[in-house]
Amino acid sequence: MHINRLCIIGVGLIGGSLARALRAASAVTEIVGCGRSADELVKAKSLGVIDIAETNIARAAQGADIVVVAVPVGAMESVFSQLASKLAPATILTDVGSTKGNVVAAAQRVFGTLPPAFVPGHPIAGTEKNGVEASFAELYRGRKVILTPNNATDANALQRVHWMWAQTGAQVLEMDAQHHDEVLAATSHLPHMLAFTLVHTLANMRERDEIFKYAAGGFRDFTRIASSDPHMWRDIALANRDALLSAIQRFNGELAAVEQAVKQSDGDALLRVFEQAKQARDRFIDESDITAKTQSMPRNN
Amino acid sequence: MHINRLCIIGVGLIGGSLARALRAASAVTEIVGCGRSADELVKAKSLGVIDIAETNIARAAQGADIVVVAVPVGAMESVFSQLASKLAPATILTDVGSTKGNVVAAAQRVFGTLPPAFVPGHPIAGTEKNGVEASFAELYRGRKVILTPNNATDANALQRVHWMWAQTGAQVLEMDAQHHDEVLAATSHLPHMLAFTLVHTLANMRERDEIFKYAAGGFRDFTRIASSDPHMWRDIALANRDALLSAIQRFNGELAAVEQAVKQSDGDALLRVFEQAKQARDRFIDESDITAKTQSMPRNN
Repeated sequence: MHINRLCIIGVGLIGGSLARALRAASAVTEIVGCGRSADELVKAKSLGVIDIAETNIARAAQGADIVVVAVPVGAMESVFSQLASKLAPATILTDVGSTKGNVVAAAQRVFGTLPPAFVPGHPIAGTEKNGVEASFAELYRGRKVILTPNNATDANALQRVHWMWAQTGAQVLEMDAQHHDEVLAATSHLPHMLAFTLVHTLANMRERDEIFKYAAGGFRDFTRIASSDPHMWRDIALANRDALLSAIQRFNGELAAVEQAVKQSDGDALLRVFEQAKQARDRFIDESDITAKTQSMPRNN
Repeated sequence: MHINRLCIIGVGLIGGSLARALRAASAVTEIVGCGRSADELVKAKSLGVIDIAETNIARAAQGADIVVVAVPVGAMESVFSQLASKLAPATILTDVGSTKGNVVAAAQRVFGTLPPAFVPGHPIAGTEKNGVEASFAELYRGRKVILTPNNATDANALQRVHWMWAQTGAQVLEMDAQHHDEVLAATSHLPHMLAFTLVHTLANMRERDEIFKYAAGGFRDFTRIASSDPHMWRDIALANRDALLSAIQRFNGELAAVEQAVKQSDGDALLRVFEQAKQARDRFIDESDITAKTQSMPRNN
């Protein structure tokens, strides 16, 4: 397999890193980058991330084997609309949205029925940094990419998108879009809400300056995701509304139980929660990852 | 200044690292280690962390210039009781408890009045690992140590404990015990409750195995503190009950607002919270610390 012409709409961290990775793997001949900002595209071209810069979405997609839409989930529908009547039937369309149910629904609205060549996808990778200048070829190595094909999805299109992501060094998996959204609400969207909310809470406290002054390693780790892009996370929260609300409600119930245990000085109840949490984390999250960092990442107690 | 004989009660990560640091700084001649487990003390001695092992608290403290109580906050009162009538008036007593109001209250109960030679302290340092085998001399370098002297505290005793911690490379600060507890509830105790509660929530979900399977870098960082010692954190939660409850309640109020904004698809409200949080974190938390880790710590979106 080989991609003759790849079109990436939205050449930021995610789109730019995909371009770099595919180029490094010699999996692509020519990359067209598309974005609203001509300056950003010039930067992407001068960095060697793309070969051709094009601000018009329909023109950018012309003649592409694969079109990757790498814009915030809130902008997907608008991009689909601009592609709708312009896309050749053989052109494969895929996206990198952090939520899938809502992207599929947007495609359904725009295209009428789900196009067979549309393969919804989500690379579970990123950093707090944004923009093409933060992109790097190794971003996806060892990471997971989830594809959420549906009944309409063409097997060949699925296979090509699967192959494309495999070239980046990622592990490519498939699951149902709704299931994806539930799992990601739990492991990613809810934690982001908690991190943003915690820092927001502390930033509004009287002792704010002192609070941040005494924040140590553990707080830095815990709140790192609160440095993520606010616009992107607003979009994700709205796009995955139902699954996120359900996750928040579960969390609220558990936090209320912890609060009650503290209030009643019920040490046994607290111990049960803390022990189960520690066991789950130690068991399920790669222990080697933690050990390697322990000495260099002291934290506050 | 020099310490002829140092007594450390509780030779784990915190006590052991203090011993190693003071020895490395040639600040101490002889270190007596005290603990309930003779095996642990033998290990501490064979590692060169302590010179003399003693399981009896009163005997361990005999002839010491400084006695450092490095046991979980829930065990402080019991240790104080065993020291009470045995401590020479000139012997300086200090502790490393993560909460201060409750340790001071325990001392008050045991000693009747607060001893002038008692200097409550809290080194803001640690890792997820426990035990003397995890201790290392550099643990406190560049970290903050908070001392919370009161009206009864002798200036000379305060000065010596201040000097002792300075020998470890730590930055030593002083504040009121209640203020300490409020600040730490916000920056440390609340985040630990949230991390434990989140992992506990996910561990109880039907899709548990898959949820942890798709957890990526951001989740690892966010939940790292949920691998902390459950007993220690039960003790801290109970010891700092009032300040912690107040912090949880503030957080609950902010999370309810975020939940409401998601429910009503109020993107502007979400954006305000996320933007303020990102600004606060980027401004107050050392940016260089984050940048250094970005490339090696990709995360999930």
